[in-house]
Amino acid sequence: MVAEILSVGTELLMGQIANTDAQYISRRLSELGVTLYRHTTVGDNPARVKEALGQALDRADMVITTGGLGPTEDDLTKEMVGEYFGLRMALHQPSLDAITSYMNRIGGVMTENNVKQAYFPEGAIIMPNLCGTAPGCIVERGGKAVAVLPGPPRELKDMFDRQLAPYLARRSGGHIESRFLRVFGIGESRLETMLLDLFHSDNPTLALYCGAGEVQARISARAETVEQARAMIAPLEAEIRRRAGDAVYGVGANNSMAQVVLEMLRARGETVCFAESCTGGMIASALVDHAGASDALSEAYVTYSNEAKERLLGVRAQTLAQFGAVSAECAAEMAEGARRASGATWGVSATGIAGPDGGTAGKPVGTVFVGVAGPDGTQAREFHFRGDRGWVRTLTCGNALNLLRLCMLRDEKA
Amino acid sequence: MVAEILSVGTELLMGQIANTDAQYISRRLSELGVTLYRHTTVGDNPARVKEALGQALDRADMVITTGGLGPTEDDLTKEMVGEYFGLRMALHQPSLDAITSYMNRIGGVMTENNVKQAYFPEGAIIMPNLCGTAPGCIVERGGKAVAVLPGPPRELKDMFDRQLAPYLARRSGGHIESRFLRVFGIGESRLETMLLDLFHSDNPTLALYCGAGEVQARISARAETVEQARAMIAPLEAEIRRRAGDAVYGVGANNSMAQVVLEMLRARGETVCFAESCTGGMIASALVDHAGASDALSEAYVTYSNEAKERLLGVRAQTLAQFGAVSAECAAEMAEGARRASGATWGVSATGIAGPDGGTAGKPVGTVFVGVAGPDGTQAREFHFRGDRGWVRTLTCGNALNLLRLCMLRDEKA
Repeated sequence: MVAEILSVGTELLMGQIANTDAQYISRRLSELGVTLYRHTTVGDNPARVKEALGQALDRADMVITTGGLGPTEDDLTKEMVGEYFGLRMALHQPSLDAITSYMNRIGGVMTENNVKQAYFPEGAIIMPNLCGTAPGCIVERGGKAVAVLPGPPRELKDMFDRQLAPYLARRSGGHIESRFLRVFGIGESRLETMLLDLFHSDNPTLALYCGAGEVQARISARAETVEQARAMIAPLEAEIRRRAGDAVYGVGANNSMAQVVLEMLRARGETVCFAESCTGGMIASALVDHAGASDALSEAYVTYSNEAKERLLGVRAQTLAQFGAVSAECAAEMAEGARRASGATWGVSATGIAGPDGGTAGKPVGTVFVGVAGPDGTQAREFHFRGDRGWVRTLTCGNALNLLRLCMLRDEKA
Repeated sequence: MVAEILSVGTELLMGQIANTDAQYISRRLSELGVTLYRHTTVGDNPARVKEALGQALDRADMVITTGGLGPTEDDLTKEMVGEYFGLRMALHQPSLDAITSYMNRIGGVMTENNVKQAYFPEGAIIMPNLCGTAPGCIVERGGKAVAVLPGPPRELKDMFDRQLAPYLARRSGGHIESRFLRVFGIGESRLETMLLDLFHSDNPTLALYCGAGEVQARISARAETVEQARAMIAPLEAEIRRRAGDAVYGVGANNSMAQVVLEMLRARGETVCFAESCTGGMIASALVDHAGASDALSEAYVTYSNEAKERLLGVRAQTLAQFGAVSAECAAEMAEGARRASGATWGVSATGIAGPDGGTAGKPVGTVFVGVAGPDGTQAREFHFRGDRGWVRTLTCGNALNLLRLCMLRDEKA
């Protein structure tokens, strides 16, 4: 089955909100094995809603609309669906009763506009709204169907999951399953070259997505059951892991580097302390963003000035004088100082020139050193990032956590 | 001028990300006075990209595409624009030089795929990418134009603001000037009530946008010249400032609370030190995100455990035992300790229960205390936020900085 999404709402065209409804429906459709080739968004304008609806129905078996079901005059999605199919609007008494009872309960006055919410194209399948007033509906005609859903995300999700999803599953049959491998430290084009021959398969398919200093490799398989789809994904995943090695740091669209590192520390019963210069607390904050951070982090230091690096971390004045604060030597001493001051298993440091000022010929903006001090010694690594201040800091944060991850992995292999 | 947005990316159709690019462009187009009737999203499929492009160009004067500019095989937006207009792809040497120099600098290997990023439909206006490798372009043909932008939001915003916005302003004629007043500490509906009579004007217009713990009031005026538009904005701005008072903390869509606080500190020649528990470095990082932070910040402390609060900040064991770490008393001692340990003019602290665990009946998740210690004494304030861990931490960060701002303002008035 091929579907399209038609979002109706001037607030989307004004950029007042992001179209998270379309994202939610898209994700759910892919889980349900429904093919989706297009989203369209138009404003609350009758002619443009009807035009876009007709175009979508020419291409797809099923159109899912969102928005335009409210009580006000410019809410007209249902009416346009009726007009498109040449169907009269008919009162649905159970919906009117539900709206009346709701209005009585909240002490509101029933207006003409509320009554409008109980009218649907004749013959429509009604989907009651369990989270708000506007019911949705499904109109079937000539082998095609239009599902009309409310715009407020809570109402939409509830109606989709409880009522539309079972309807779609009955109509379609088949599943798409996807798996994301998260890769850090190999650029998008290099990874593509490494995996080039794997892109030619139609099912499962492989695609790469670029993130902050990382790449996500998505494997998707289509099969009759979830189990079959997963079985198709497994060998491709194994091959990618074989080629990319330790650069594959996690699985899943929501599994960040900070979360992976936190889980490794917790599993090992170890702790970390950060000594941050150019990142200014960003690395610690990334870890603290995840519940359970207190198991692995007790304290951290932002040492932005040289004086603070000396006093709080014990960086030697001579190191600063000879190599500068942005140096492998300083990063190493910062990491060691953080480890010593806190008593944590690991000390991790970052020092660099985030820009826009402060760069020199020898150390241009984007020059960064990260250090890791652990039970088996200390190492520091040099990076050269390009981008604005925020981007350099973000990449520094990711690479500091990644270096800690690699040190822990090496431990486990040793 | 009528525009349409065409987003290209299978990840959008899979629901992996929300289409925030379309939201950003929509908002900016409305500020620039460009009419937008439709968004369309298609996957990384050559035939469907070309078909959707043709349909959009039939309806609109200008089509803005996002995505599909990466180095990989399925990135093909530029190629489809060229094919649609019957234009050969031509090498743009300055783009190739920029990409080559970037790859050399990071020690990467230049692949065929990187070279592809330097090819454009012949005659295109090239828009260099100042935040990544893929340049964008504008192709003009028969009175219509297609602007091709990269998908990563950072790159897209930078290219839109610096390069496409001036182009659109030239093409559309007339000017829309907008001014954003940033308001902290007054909720959206309360602010709307305070300003109710000001929403009735057609030109200038007033609109409210909700942000992280703050509201932005956008005033837009349309006139023949920028100067005329600004003159229309000024009296409305003055009236809003009169009603909202100190809650108006800044001007401009990109002027964050951290930046405003940093500028105040620098202007006063003062410094700050943070003592962060639940925010875990987020407040310090927000300040360090702005150039010049070294003038106002030398060091900061993440004290996540009670032991660290005692050892690094001198919080008394009795305070922790009697009131707990999440208390006004602890926040005050943390702020004082940060000020004392660092010698900074101001000490600012945050301690709270970010969730999802750790809440109690007396102190539910979302209970937060922030403290400010300064030359004239110390104060702590209690908050109850609703939302997930990230949201509670974000609101804590904003309110801690805002409390420091209000303390500095009070100083200036005294």
